[in-house]
Amino acid sequence: MFQKILIANRGEIAVRVARACKQLGVPSVAVYSTADRDSAVVRLADEAVHIGPAQPGRSYLNAAAVLQAADQCGADAIHPGYGFLSESPDFADACEAAGVTLIGPPAAVLAELGDKTSARALMTRAGLPLLPGGVDPLDVDAAGDLARRIGFPVIIKAAAGGGGRGMTVVTDPARFADDFRRTQATAQVLFGDGRVYVEKYLSQTRHVEIQVLCDGHGNAVHLGERDCTVQRRHQKLIEESPAPALPDGLAERMGRSAVAGAVAAGYVGVGTFEFLLAPDGSYYFMEVNCRIQVEHPVTEMTTGIDLVAEQIKVAAGARLTVTQEDIRPRGVAIECRVNAEDPANGFAPTPGLVDEFVPAGGPFVRVDTHVYPGYVVPPNYDSLLAKLVVWAPNRAEAITRMRHALAEFRVRGPRLRTTQDFLGDVLAHPKFAAAEHSTSLVEELLASGPAAPDGARSPGKALT
Amino acid sequence: MFQKILIANRGEIAVRVARACKQLGVPSVAVYSTADRDSAVVRLADEAVHIGPAQPGRSYLNAAAVLQAADQCGADAIHPGYGFLSESPDFADACEAAGVTLIGPPAAVLAELGDKTSARALMTRAGLPLLPGGVDPLDVDAAGDLARRIGFPVIIKAAAGGGGRGMTVVTDPARFADDFRRTQATAQVLFGDGRVYVEKYLSQTRHVEIQVLCDGHGNAVHLGERDCTVQRRHQKLIEESPAPALPDGLAERMGRSAVAGAVAAGYVGVGTFEFLLAPDGSYYFMEVNCRIQVEHPVTEMTTGIDLVAEQIKVAAGARLTVTQEDIRPRGVAIECRVNAEDPANGFAPTPGLVDEFVPAGGPFVRVDTHVYPGYVVPPNYDSLLAKLVVWAPNRAEAITRMRHALAEFRVRGPRLRTTQDFLGDVLAHPKFAAAEHSTSLVEELLASGPAAPDGARSPGKALT
Repeated sequence: MFQKILIANRGEIAVRVARACKQLGVPSVAVYSTADRDSAVVRLADEAVHIGPAQPGRSYLNAAAVLQAADQCGADAIHPGYGFLSESPDFADACEAAGVTLIGPPAAVLAELGDKTSARALMTRAGLPLLPGGVDPLDVDAAGDLARRIGFPVIIKAAAGGGGRGMTVVTDPARFADDFRRTQATAQVLFGDGRVYVEKYLSQTRHVEIQVLCDGHGNAVHLGERDCTVQRRHQKLIEESPAPALPDGLAERMGRSAVAGAVAAGYVGVGTFEFLLAPDGSYYFMEVNCRIQVEHPVTEMTTGIDLVAEQIKVAAGARLTVTQEDIRPRGVAIECRVNAEDPANGFAPTPGLVDEFVPAGGPFVRVDTHVYPGYVVPPNYDSLLAKLVVWAPNRAEAITRMRHALAEFRVRGPRLRTTQDFLGDVLAHPKFAAAEHSTSLVEELLASGPAAPDGARSPGKALT
Repeated sequence: MFQKILIANRGEIAVRVARACKQLGVPSVAVYSTADRDSAVVRLADEAVHIGPAQPGRSYLNAAAVLQAADQCGADAIHPGYGFLSESPDFADACEAAGVTLIGPPAAVLAELGDKTSARALMTRAGLPLLPGGVDPLDVDAAGDLARRIGFPVIIKAAAGGGGRGMTVVTDPARFADDFRRTQATAQVLFGDGRVYVEKYLSQTRHVEIQVLCDGHGNAVHLGERDCTVQRRHQKLIEESPAPALPDGLAERMGRSAVAGAVAAGYVGVGTFEFLLAPDGSYYFMEVNCRIQVEHPVTEMTTGIDLVAEQIKVAAGARLTVTQEDIRPRGVAIECRVNAEDPANGFAPTPGLVDEFVPAGGPFVRVDTHVYPGYVVPPNYDSLLAKLVVWAPNRAEAITRMRHALAEFRVRGPRLRTTQDFLGDVLAHPKFAAAEHSTSLVEELLASGPAAPDGARSPGKALT
C-alpha cells in the first residue's frame, strides 16, 4: 500500500477520497487553492498544502504545482478525482517521471482511450458495437457518401467539439451539403478548428454506462450499469442503478462488452464505459471515462463495494479479491446532484454563503458533500453542493425516498438557489416514473413551463 | 393503510417514524412538549400538536393528552416509538376503546409478555431455553433450596427492580441466607417492595437479541440477530449485526427460538427477543421488547428491509411480503449511540445549545438524529443526540469505518460534551476487536483509567 496519498482535487470528491484513505489506513494530503482554504477536505485530510490561487489553471490544473506539493509532503501516490488532471496523459507521464503513482490507468491507456479515433478502433477490434459513421474529419463529398451509406438522419459534429456545441442533425439528404459547410464554419468560430465528422443520429436515446474494475494482473469485472439519461446540456443530473426497463439480458451483454473493452485496452483501475441505448435495445459505445465517476455512489449502494478504496488498492498493485460471480447488486439506488444554481434563471450558478445546511438522513440515505453551515461556495468551480443518494428494494420506493430526501434537505443562503425542487419535478414526471424518458426529458420539462421557484412546493410535488 | 398516523414520541425515533410515514404516503402528526417545540419532527411531520409541558408525565406519558391529540387531528393510528407509552397494556386498551390503532402488538400480548412470570411460562411452553431459577418471589428457605438445586453462583434480584439495582451475586452457599435478607431489605428501600427471586448467575455473558416481524395472519420471520453486549449500567452503547464469533448454527437456532416464541405469543408487529449468551454457546431467554428498538437500523442496513415501514404495514393489516428465505443479510452493520454526556464526569448529561452539528457522511454511513445546528438539548429527556450507523463487508472494516465516522462527526456547544471519544475507545479496545468482550467491557475500560477528555485524541485512537 502507498505511504501517503495526495488528493489532487477539490469539493465533494476530495472528501470522498480522503474518507477512502482513512478506511485504508493511508495518510492523505489535501491540496487547496486560495478559494478553497475553508473546504471540508482541508480539515479532514491528515495534511493540507496550498497550491495556488483560485483559477484552476494556476491550482488544480497546474501539474507542476501538484507534483511539487507531492514532493514536498512525501506523497508516493496522487488521486486525481474527476475532471481537472484526471484523464491527462501528460500529467500521467509527469507523475511517472517524478516517481509518483497516479491512481488511474497507465498514461498509454489514457492516451489511447482519450483519442476518439484510436478508442473507436480499439473497441471495434474488441467487438463492441459502434454507432455507424466515424470520428475522422471528412470533406463534404466523402461525408455525403458516408451519410447516404449509413442512412439519414445523421449528425455532423465538430472534431474539436464537446458539451453539445457545434452539432447539426440532418434529416433531409438535400440539405446535407449546406448543413455540413455551416457546421464547419461554426466549429471554426467556436473551437478554432473547422474539421467535422458524421455519425448516425438516433433520437429518444438513453445514456447507460457500465462500471468496470480492473487490476494490473489481467483481472477485470463489471459492477453493473448506471442509467444517466436525465441530463441538461450533457450534464448529468440524476443517475440510477440498475438501468430501468432494459430488455432481458441486455445489461449483462453490455457488461460483457465493457469488460472485453477494458481487457483489450489493458485497463487498470475503475473506469466507465458509456453507451448510447436506442429504443430498439441496440447499444453503441461512446467513450471510456478513465477515472472515478461523479455517480459512482449508486453502484456502491447496490453492490456494497467501496469503489474508491478498490481503485486505490489496484493502483497499489493488489489483485482483485472479487470475481464476476461475487458481484450481486441488490435493489435500486438513485443519485441527485444538488447544485447551487437557479433553475428560474437559466440554471445560473449562485455562489456565496451557505448559512443553513441540514442534510437529509435516516434509512438508506447517503450524502456526499464538502459543504457545511457557514461554507462559502466559491464562484470559480462547478456548482455541485452535494450528491444525495438513496436506496430502496425497488425503483418506485427509491423515487419516493429521493423525493422526500430532497424535500427534507435544507440548504439556505442569502443569495443561494438550488436545483432541489427542479430535481423533484423531474422525479415526479410521469415519463421518469415509467422509465419512458430519453435524454431530452429535461428540455421537454423546461419547455412545458417555468421551473418551480426555489423553495416553493409545486403542485407536482404532492407526495401522497 | 391508515389515514393519518400520530407519532407519540420525541427525538430521533419521532423523526424516524415521520420518515417511514412519508415513505408510505401516510400523513403524520407530531406531538410535542413545550421543551420540544423546536424539535426536527415538528417541522418534518405534516402536522404538529402541543400536548403539554416538558415533564414526561404531563406530555409523552400522558395517555389522555395523546389520545385527545389523535382525536383532534383525526389520526386513526398511533405510533408509540420506544419508551414512554410504547409497551403499556393500559395505553393499548385505551387506544382500542378510543377506536385508534396502536401500532404494536395487541394489549393482551403486551400484558402477557410484559409480566416476567407469564412471559417465562409462555416461552417455556414454546420451547425456549430459560435461565435456571425463577422470577416468582420466594422466602429464604424456598430460595435456598432453589439455589442449591440450580447450583452456585446465583443472583438474587428484586421482583420490582430493574436497571441493575437491587441485585446480589452469591458464590458461597454459606452466605446465601444473609445475602438474601440483605437484598430483601435493599429492595424494600429502593422499590418499596421487598420481594426478591433467585436465578442462576452467569459471568462473561453477551447480550444477543433476535429481531422478529409478524403479521396478523400468523406469518412470522426473524431478521437475524444483533449483539448489544457493549453496555454501561444496562444501557446499550454499541450494537452490531450479525453477532460476531458465534458458534456455527447458533444464530439460526436463536432465530428459530424467537419465531417460535412470537408465534406462541400471537405476536403482531416488530419485536425483539433478548437472550443472554453464555461463553459455552448456551443461550437463555430474557424478555421480549414489544416495540421498535433503538438499534433497529443495524438490521435495516444488513437486510435492506425498512423495519418501521413494515411495522406500520402489518399494523394496518397487511400480510408479510417476505418469507424467511427472502431475508438474506449482507455484511456487517454497527451502531453507536452518541449521547450528550460527559464521560469524564460520570457520564453526566450535558443539555444545552448545540451550535455546531456536522454529521458524518459518505459511503455506508447513516445518521438518525433530531438535532441540527442551533438545537437546544432539553434537560428533561434521555441524552441521545444521534445514532451513527455504518456498514461494511466485514467486521474489521465496519469498525474502522465507525471509528473514522465518529472522529468526523462534529458536535459542539458551549457546555456540550459527548460520548464520541469514549465510543472510539471502546471500538479500539482489543477485546472488542477480537469479539472477546462481555457485558462488563465498559466497566473494565472505565476501571483501567480515566476516559479521554472529550475532543482530545487519546493514544488509543491512532488509526493507522
